[in-house]
Amino acid sequence: MKLNIALLAGDGIGPEVIDQAVKVSDAVAAKFGHEINWKPALTGAAAIDAVGEPYPDETHDICKSSDAVLFGAIGHPKFDNDPSAKVRPEQGLLKMRKALGLFANVRPTFTFPSLLDKSPLKKERIEGTDLVFLRELTGGIYFGEKGRREEGETAYDNCVYTRAEVQRLAKKGFELAMTRGKKLCCVDKANVLETSRLWRETVQAMEKDYPEVEVSYEFVDAVAMRLVQWPNSYDVLITENLFGDILTDEASVISGSMGLMPSASLGSDIGLFEPIHGSYPQAAGKNIANPMATVLSAAMMFENFGLQDEGKAIRDVVNKALNEGMVTEDLADGGASYGTSEVGDWLAANI
Amino acid sequence: MKLNIALLAGDGIGPEVIDQAVKVSDAVAAKFGHEINWKPALTGAAAIDAVGEPYPDETHDICKSSDAVLFGAIGHPKFDNDPSAKVRPEQGLLKMRKALGLFANVRPTFTFPSLLDKSPLKKERIEGTDLVFLRELTGGIYFGEKGRREEGETAYDNCVYTRAEVQRLAKKGFELAMTRGKKLCCVDKANVLETSRLWRETVQAMEKDYPEVEVSYEFVDAVAMRLVQWPNSYDVLITENLFGDILTDEASVISGSMGLMPSASLGSDIGLFEPIHGSYPQAAGKNIANPMATVLSAAMMFENFGLQDEGKAIRDVVNKALNEGMVTEDLADGGASYGTSEVGDWLAANI
Ligand SMILES: CC(C)[C@H](C(=O)O)[C@@H](O)C(=O)O
Ligand SMILES: CC(C)[C@H](C(=O)O)[C@@H](O)C(=O)O
Repeated sequence: MKLNIALLAGDGIGPEVIDQAVKVSDAVAAKFGHEINWKPALTGAAAIDAVGEPYPDETHDICKSSDAVLFGAIGHPKFDNDPSAKVRPEQGLLKMRKALGLFANVRPTFTFPSLLDKSPLKKERIEGTDLVFLRELTGGIYFGEKGRREEGETAYDNCVYTRAEVQRLAKKGFELAMTRGKKLCCVDKANVLETSRLWRETVQAMEKDYPEVEVSYEFVDAVAMRLVQWPNSYDVLITENLFGDILTDEASVISGSMGLMPSASLGSDIGLFEPIHGSYPQAAGKNIANPMATVLSAAMMFENFGLQDEGKAIRDVVNKALNEGMVTEDLADGGASYGTSEVGDWLAANI
Repeated sequence: MKLNIALLAGDGIGPEVIDQAVKVSDAVAAKFGHEINWKPALTGAAAIDAVGEPYPDETHDICKSSDAVLFGAIGHPKFDNDPSAKVRPEQGLLKMRKALGLFANVRPTFTFPSLLDKSPLKKERIEGTDLVFLRELTGGIYFGEKGRREEGETAYDNCVYTRAEVQRLAKKGFELAMTRGKKLCCVDKANVLETSRLWRETVQAMEKDYPEVEVSYEFVDAVAMRLVQWPNSYDVLITENLFGDILTDEASVISGSMGLMPSASLGSDIGLFEPIHGSYPQAAGKNIANPMATVLSAAMMFENFGLQDEGKAIRDVVNKALNEGMVTEDLADGGASYGTSEVGDWLAANI
């Protein structure tokens, strides 16, 4: 296969971890006879600094003419504590999601046996956890009308959903559940929100098309609890944008493998693949960031092209590295640790 | 003191746990020379069944003419899976909060040394956890305009906040922090939401009035993670209604003492005190529900009247019961356990 991949390294540790994912992907491509044409483009604070906006048109054009996007991380602390900042890296992310039609954010949470001890949760609570969130990514309160009135004294944000938006996300949820444990949990706040009632009634109406899938409906507050209590009781969860933002991050820490969790954002022909961790500006340029989440995001990318063996080759080499202690300091537990690029080299060499 | 207390038992296990709180409160009153006049009133599904609405005017009148409200629990599964139900128990709760001006929900999460093992988290992660959420309770997306358009195909919910609403909640937060660890965390999503930017700028402007309080600003998704990772790093957290709903429930399970967590809702002269747990319809009428959260809510009620010794007497007797194994089956760990009313009798007798 000939693959054109837009490469959006972004901010902080983004460029370093992206470099390793490129090495590993190239090694996989060489082994399986593919050709990858990487097309770097600016995004995030890096793009603001360079051209004044976080998702420049040129970057969008590069993404649109690619088969997929591999993304590092964005965000810089200089924007966070300034509520009045006019341009923010996050706007680039939101604009990109919308412009590329990436309405479904796929966020798996699973455990690596060798890392169970890293979890804040007791081992018996998390063993066997293997769940996936499908978070709606281009609607809801993120994209509704927002602003101020009464001379800035009143602020508002609008949450809006159409039935069609819920259907296309839920469809992906049902389909994913069919390939896995056949359980689907619709997370909402239908006892309070009208948008949630639309979600619930839409999903209820789709149940008959997937008779094998066992569907449950839980309130977002109840899920926030049960994720900590019994994470291994879930299979596939679908939810709206803001709930998904909160719950997927909560879920990511329970496994003890947060630094290793990949994600995919899908919707149109062009998928975007990125680690769930942030840009960790404190660690930038130090060659200490853990590249595995980005490498596993590349695995999701191959799998999304239907290249299952290629994806598996990456997952296997990551497992091997974990078992053999070829890890960055965050996973070293006081033992030997290696730099970001050494881990990347090792992974690529062992493909 | 002469106290008029509205008694809203509500649904499920509500009546049983409320009975025990009454016994214990009466014992405290007798010991310290107070007189309590309990005024029962209908609420929740029980009120819908009896008079067709979940917070009847008569109940409101009883609350308004009382010094405080002691509340059990509301909610019944027959309403949960029917998105089109016209009347719901939850509406009663929201109406009551608004009508009584209860804009600040105080939700402590603390640990009982004897219960640390019950937590899904590892002991070293939760030891020493003692945090309080102040959740805004009468604004935000719960109370904004909501509805449907395009023949029901589009649903919307409006989130609205005024600066004054943020200020009065934040003021309580700063004041509470001054009586505790002097740390305040403002939880928002200021990188996306305009209402959050109003929250952040409002709290920032108040910092100078409380120079001793160390203020931090964290995104709601980051807090959802850190609550599981390092719950004992927090002191006081303030946040808007929906974030508070999700995060306070998440926080409640980390301590291992969820069945014991009380809460207060404040704002006007009349405070409302209730356990954080729900109505557990499955357990209703079986004399197995743990009454301690409701009993500790009564302790918060006394303390809110300035009756610190009375509150402490209740907390002490609950600790004694825990240490001596006078507990319901949820805390018995296979050992001896007692019924709801036996635990209540014992607590009252040992005041
Ligand atoms: C940076 C921010 C806008 C973003 C979001 O809230 O969607 C992030 O938290 C995420 O989850 O990808
Ligand atoms: C029952 C529901 C409306 C309520 C809320 O969301 O406020 C409950 O979850 C709570 O936290 O008190």
